[in-house]
Amino acid sequence: MMSKHATIRAAEERDAPAIAAMMRELAVYEGTESDVSFSVEQLRAGLSGHPPKLKVLLAEDEDGLAGFASYTIDFAIWTGGDVLRVDDVFISEHRRRHGIGRALMRRIASIAVAAGMAARWEVEVGNVNAQQFYRGLGVELREKLVARWSREAMKGQLQQE
Amino acid sequence: MMSKHATIRAAEERDAPAIAAMMRELAVYEGTESDVSFSVEQLRAGLSGHPPKLKVLLAEDEDGLAGFASYTIDFAIWTGGDVLRVDDVFISEHRRRHGIGRALMRRIASIAVAAGMAARWEVEVGNVNAQQFYRGLGVELREKLVARWSREAMKGQLQQE
Repeated sequence: MMSKHATIRAAEERDAPAIAAMMRELAVYEGTESDVSFSVEQLRAGLSGHPPKLKVLLAEDEDGLAGFASYTIDFAIWTGGDVLRVDDVFISEHRRRHGIGRALMRRIASIAVAAGMAARWEVEVGNVNAQQFYRGLGVELREKLVARWSREAMKGQLQQE
Repeated sequence: MMSKHATIRAAEERDAPAIAAMMRELAVYEGTESDVSFSVEQLRAGLSGHPPKLKVLLAEDEDGLAGFASYTIDFAIWTGGDVLRVDDVFISEHRRRHGIGRALMRRIASIAVAAGMAARWEVEVGNVNAQQFYRGLGVELREKLVARWSREAMKGQLQQE
């Protein structure tokens, strides 16, 4: 599978509205809308700064924006240094199966390898297509429980004595 | 359950060797030694800096160091801002069931709530004690697949064309 003329570039602040639209489309696809609560302004702020807190790679083809991959670089002491944490990978529905996802992941690999980092992220248990795609890239998938402690639950704990 | 005279304080660089020893003990307990490859020097570097990349809370009682909780503050665009990511929580074996873990988690909650952040972390599927402990604090646990892409696997992908 080859991407037909898809170009990968780093997103800039002006791309925030288009990325926000794709992120919401992805959340709907994954059924995780209730976890998503950012504004376009917050997204723009994440993309600005030197270095930006949020990094986004955009895939573009003849018809425009075809998909994106977002990531952050976080500290992970178990590896002794930084880790590249993939946030979202999304390809517009009618552009899937053209190698765009693979092109995005290869760009992520080259960034991580150049900086001596491993990459990690989470995959929904029900997203079998994504699992198959990632396994084909040599990604190891392990079952884990992800713990989320909401501000409301934390406040409840702090009020107890 | 009350912690008997356990005091919680933020770790400093000089605590690196003691924290490293506890981190290795935890990795052995969880069977994740092969994922852990940091040096004491890297740990010390993570604890220094303003603000430090790695934050560690230490619990101390009459007999000395009783446990720790480590965390980082990372950017998470789905929430529109920062998230407190808990790294490790560990209580020395003969000090468990004295409320020290709860005291550490409450300190984490107060830090997160004060900064308007939610907290998240991963729990091993087999660690039923930890799951029970976290559920008792109002933590939501969800099954996920955690994807890890090693540098070796990424290099392999980049060599293909």
